[in-house]
Amino acid sequence: MSDVAEIQGDIQSVMAEIGRKAREAAAILAKTAPDVKNRALFAAAAAIRRNQAEILAANARDMEAAQAQGLTGAILDRLLLNPDRVEGIARGIEAVADLDDPVGKVTETWTRPNGLEISRVRVPLGVIGIIYESRPNVTADAGVLCLKSGNAAILRGGTESQHSSRAIHACLVEGLEAAGLPAGAIQLIPTQDRAAVGVLLSMSDSVDIIVPRGGKGLIERVQKESKVPVMAHLDGICHVYIDGAADPEKALNVTLNAKMRRTGICGATETLLVDRKVVNSHLPAILDALAAKGCELRGDETVQALDSRVLPATEEDWRTEYLDAILSIRVVNGVDGAIDHIARYGSHHTDSIITEDREAAEKFLREVDSAIVLVNASTQFADGGEFGFGAEIGISTGKLHARGPVGVEQLTSYKYQVRGNGQVRP
Amino acid sequence: MSDVAEIQGDIQSVMAEIGRKAREAAAILAKTAPDVKNRALFAAAAAIRRNQAEILAANARDMEAAQAQGLTGAILDRLLLNPDRVEGIARGIEAVADLDDPVGKVTETWTRPNGLEISRVRVPLGVIGIIYESRPNVTADAGVLCLKSGNAAILRGGTESQHSSRAIHACLVEGLEAAGLPAGAIQLIPTQDRAAVGVLLSMSDSVDIIVPRGGKGLIERVQKESKVPVMAHLDGICHVYIDGAADPEKALNVTLNAKMRRTGICGATETLLVDRKVVNSHLPAILDALAAKGCELRGDETVQALDSRVLPATEEDWRTEYLDAILSIRVVNGVDGAIDHIARYGSHHTDSIITEDREAAEKFLREVDSAIVLVNASTQFADGGEFGFGAEIGISTGKLHARGPVGVEQLTSYKYQVRGNGQVRP
Repeated sequence: MSDVAEIQGDIQSVMAEIGRKAREAAAILAKTAPDVKNRALFAAAAAIRRNQAEILAANARDMEAAQAQGLTGAILDRLLLNPDRVEGIARGIEAVADLDDPVGKVTETWTRPNGLEISRVRVPLGVIGIIYESRPNVTADAGVLCLKSGNAAILRGGTESQHSSRAIHACLVEGLEAAGLPAGAIQLIPTQDRAAVGVLLSMSDSVDIIVPRGGKGLIERVQKESKVPVMAHLDGICHVYIDGAADPEKALNVTLNAKMRRTGICGATETLLVDRKVVNSHLPAILDALAAKGCELRGDETVQALDSRVLPATEEDWRTEYLDAILSIRVVNGVDGAIDHIARYGSHHTDSIITEDREAAEKFLREVDSAIVLVNASTQFADGGEFGFGAEIGISTGKLHARGPVGVEQLTSYKYQVRGNGQVRP
Repeated sequence: MSDVAEIQGDIQSVMAEIGRKAREAAAILAKTAPDVKNRALFAAAAAIRRNQAEILAANARDMEAAQAQGLTGAILDRLLLNPDRVEGIARGIEAVADLDDPVGKVTETWTRPNGLEISRVRVPLGVIGIIYESRPNVTADAGVLCLKSGNAAILRGGTESQHSSRAIHACLVEGLEAAGLPAGAIQLIPTQDRAAVGVLLSMSDSVDIIVPRGGKGLIERVQKESKVPVMAHLDGICHVYIDGAADPEKALNVTLNAKMRRTGICGATETLLVDRKVVNSHLPAILDALAAKGCELRGDETVQALDSRVLPATEEDWRTEYLDAILSIRVVNGVDGAIDHIARYGSHHTDSIITEDREAAEKFLREVDSAIVLVNASTQFADGGEFGFGAEIGISTGKLHARGPVGVEQLTSYKYQVRGNGQVRP
């Protein structure tokens, strides 16, 4: 296992070497058969189980340092590993191995009048840089998703989880070696020097895409500084809109789940929009249920007038991703009012309409410009696992390349294979 | 028609206003029905025909200025419009109108075990900036491809073709107005000040993607400076590889077409690789035919020894896109030698193998990391029209988003539409 103190040479040359090895490994991975990649994945999972004690000991060092620094409960919980969580990492790796291999999959084939047969075939992207914060399991999740999709990974974990990440990474390398694949296929940047991130973001020759995973501060820095394309979402300001034709029970259940199932994830709803027509009929029960679950309510004047527990919402509230048990609530005029509000304040992530009116549903699905738009379902379904992708490396709100959950398929590009019989162009 | 002298305010604010109008128009275009977009396209084609005299007069001004500047024959030919070429522009617009509308097309649908029905649906990218050089017809081609795919276009044409471009652009605006669409849908930057390009490349809030069309100098500048993602190819160093199992007649016909059909396009072959096994049997006839067509031949020592017309090729030749009647020729050891050469010197654009050996063909198709790989067909098929896309805005060699010919489908992104019945996430 490498150590910070062992690093020879300056960061620039350390990073250049990592980039070179990743590029080399990517060329090999692109040609590697599915069963060889799977052999590496299963061997990595076995190594995780076999090295549980070492991983937990490394994690204990991270936890001690974090406690000494006075880090708070939520961060500590994200950082903590225990036997169950280590087993979860191993199972997660096996689940990725069991996914369909996307590389080489023919997504379309057609024949031209001149007899040329054209196929579009998935190929890996190349080298993927992943920058993340305190969750040590991202080391495994991101590394193995890249491997499954034939990409080389350069991982840069947070300082708080550095020992845990190194212990997990060592197991991934064991897996690679067991399958005869180069260790350059999944590399962990061996220094916590912040300058390394700056260098990584400038390596447009050896890195094809950067995936940042973490808080808004990290994403903003990466999007601003990177010379390599970035796949991410900055905000998840998700909306539930209760239409005039909403079924009250669905409205209640979906809103409660969308807001309160887990408040800290990007698919959690932050703003509830309610059609003026059903404010009196549908909203009171929803406010009661939310308040009973400990949700702070902030509303416009109409909503405040309806319920004394509702605090005033300011303009700022409509733009805020609370990631907490707080909900902003606004009354709108029908589906057009909801679409306008989302166009103005949304973050193109995930939005849901609750309605029994097919026309309103289709209009919302068509006109809301978000990666995921739902009818009569919770925004918390914004997740690669829930989409059936098996696992995801994150969710993208950009319009280029992949949008929504980014799973193994979304980590691929394509090429055209053209089969002819001597055709020349007239 | 706007004029440079009319521009009020500084370039920064002119460009900001263009960006604002484009964003507004994009929001409208995303919801515009196919027949409305087609009405605009047919009206634009009619306006082109009706205003032929004005377009030719504007073009005459450009031609005079170009001749006064002493520009060379190829540039003058690219710049020149005549009645046939104006009619060609009008027909090109109608051909785009006749393409399938990509927006709203469902590319995949599946149902989850919990009953959620998930569809992936094409949506426009948003605002596309196109920077091009002397061909005035690009004003129409690029503008209408963007419109058909529901995107707003910001066009920046070359100084040499400025009057022609403005005359053509005025016809596109006539078309937009006839269909009740905002003029902001296709805007032409009204100044030739080079600073405007710099501003456009920095407008990451209002421009979603930049497509540069022109020489290597332009592409390099755009790729280097742009803060907006760029879709392009820098080089088209295309290869034909004649395998040991090649049919001699196919090898001859394809090589001749790939090199000489048109030498100035990106899909023209620049390097011929020949398996050592068939150098003596296959190559002499090909060299004769190429020389007869006026192609300069540059080869390695083996090729030089074969034919006294062959000049020595240097290391630089393998890296050069001649865009001219020059071919570099190298002898390699089988398909692996060809794949290695292409990995080292290629530009990930288009490469072809000539062989009757299915295994060699499949290996080449799989392992050559280019946007387009062909078997027994000319590299000059690297073209959206030849792929059946109807028209293309360019060819991309990047791996993110679109690769290969970029037609209307490739100018779209997607969203997920999820239809439920009250599902909440457990």
